Amino acid sequence: METSVVSDRAQAVVALGGGHGLHASLTSLRLLLDDLTVDELTAVVTVADNGGSSGRLRGEFNVLPPGDLRMALAALCGDDEWGDTWARVLQHRFEGDGEMRGHVVGNLLIVGLWELLGDHVDALAWVGRLLGARGRVLPMAATPMDITAEVRGLIADDPDALTVVRGQVEVATTGGVITSIALDPAVPDVSPAVISAIDDADWALLGPGSWFTSVLPHLLVPQLRQALVRTDARLVVVLNLAEQDGETGGFGPADHLAVLAEHAPDLVIHTVLADRASVGAGLAELAETVTALGARLVVDDVAADDGSHRHDPTRLAAAYARIFADS
Amino acid sequence: METSVVSDRAQAVVALGGGHGLHASLTSLRLLLDDLTVDELTAVVTVADNGGSSGRLRGEFNVLPPGDLRMALAALCGDDEWGDTWARVLQHRFEGDGEMRGHVVGNLLIVGLWELLGDHVDALAWVGRLLGARGRVLPMAATPMDITAEVRGLIADDPDALTVVRGQVEVATTGGVITSIALDPAVPDVSPAVISAIDDADWALLGPGSWFTSVLPHLLVPQLRQALVRTDARLVVVLNLAEQDGETGGFGPADHLAVLAEHAPDLVIHTVLADRASVGAGLAELAETVTALGARLVVDDVAADDGSHRHDPTRLAAAYARIFADS
Repeated sequence: METSVVSDRAQAVVALGGGHGLHASLTSLRLLLDDLTVDELTAVVTVADNGGSSGRLRGEFNVLPPGDLRMALAALCGDDEWGDTWARVLQHRFEGDGEMRGHVVGNLLIVGLWELLGDHVDALAWVGRLLGARGRVLPMAATPMDITAEVRGLIADDPDALTVVRGQVEVATTGGVITSIALDPAVPDVSPAVISAIDDADWALLGPGSWFTSVLPHLLVPQLRQALVRTDARLVVVLNLAEQDGETGGFGPADHLAVLAEHAPDLVIHTVLADRASVGAGLAELAETVTALGARLVVDDVAADDGSHRHDPTRLAAAYARIFADS
Repeated sequence: METSVVSDRAQAVVALGGGHGLHASLTSLRLLLDDLTVDELTAVVTVADNGGSSGRLRGEFNVLPPGDLRMALAALCGDDEWGDTWARVLQHRFEGDGEMRGHVVGNLLIVGLWELLGDHVDALAWVGRLLGARGRVLPMAATPMDITAEVRGLIADDPDALTVVRGQVEVATTGGVITSIALDPAVPDVSPAVISAIDDADWALLGPGSWFTSVLPHLLVPQLRQALVRTDARLVVVLNLAEQDGETGGFGPADHLAVLAEHAPDLVIHTVLADRASVGAGLAELAETVTALGARLVVDDVAADDGSHRHDPTRLAAAYARIFADS
């Protein structure tokens, strides 16, 4: 039975993901911080990127790839000229054709802080203070990670053969079908701040985002998966609005859920949030999969109207608020 | 006649220079902001650097070299954990052996702000606010400058021949004797904020610093020299503690003054500040030169005790305070 009673206390939320998907989710959650639906927000961010500015800095300094962390911090920036200006500066990407081309100001600032302060969590808190950010941003693990994937269909003569593909960029753009992923190192250190955020949360959000390279990696970190299994927080899986070429080409909503369950069979999912128009004719199959997982399916209008396959921040925030109230 | 009456109102000061010399002077002036001897402070910084991180960024983006501006801002940072931490971050230089080696975090941040905001003065004010900086830091000119020098003694067969050397690094490290310098472009644009700071100042400080490449360039910018000639501000020339190999090898204190007067004959110098131990036996010659220029000579103990040929911030601040009171 659904109720429409709004919870009478603010919620503690931990959002796990990476890249543009996490940025979209955090943009919505910031709105819920503003209206006091949420009072504690922690983003836990993948650290497996090996491309672009992040990949170059990781290669040069053997540090965590800073890009997804920077993007998450920018999403939480203060809603005033100060926060907005520093967020735009930190998101600024150098152009031209010289050695700085493609580097992002905030990535360089974060790496400088890491070198100077020697502590990821402390350094990211300083960037958060600079931005007047609401909430905290933490890395999924304390060491840079590599994603490996078993991919089918890369060998023309043997279409069922599995090939191991290594690296976030390589996995995200593979021409084959990903059957599973793994992390290297397999058992990375996790900051105690991440574990206690999950322990203390009312809600844990997983997704949206690049499914194999930004969403599932969290479930492969043993300490994170154990914390998600152990916590009283209710887990909400937020489905993407479309398949992604390469990574999830040909995957429907139910396939996304199935592969998630395969990677973390002991995980209890409380709610699955899907966009009505994006699910379309796949609704019956999705509902069946969600029911089989023992979860609740929430179908809502959360897509932007511009055909971009992006979540609309206000609509996604409203959907989150309804989910948090409906428990 | 000297008086010992302390001025009953705080002073507006503009400090012209660049590099480590200006950093030392600003560190002292910040102490005078703290004790209310000074209530307005504007640093006007050379923008002719073509070496190191600044030179690379200038070459890549055709922007002002940010390094001396960054160093001046760091000297003025707030005297608390916030200001101190951000100053250290902005001064942090990347090591290693990759593409970022030698770049300084604050230089990259400043260039990012310039690209984003499109205005030097506004962008530097944002960095000042980040640092909780006391006072303002402005560039000497609105376009990157090149220093050229006429140098004697570079041609073995003709030791009196003059060679033109181009570039701050090349001039500062020449093996010959610099006889004069010039700027390219010769008539750069100057921010109105610089001119009004000079117009409204009670005191203008020139030096200490690399004489030909950080101190004299200001006098070669027509708008700056005209403002310094026109203003009611009293001009204090702060002499270096030692000659610099290459740039001023073999120059005594009187030679520094003489070459300054040659580059700006219409400039009225109010006070020349020299360090007692550094002047040593050159005192009589220096006094004669200062008198010939119509200026007052103040000889004080302003050097650090460590033999570093650097000014001691507290002693230099005390000397400035005595000069400002003694008018």
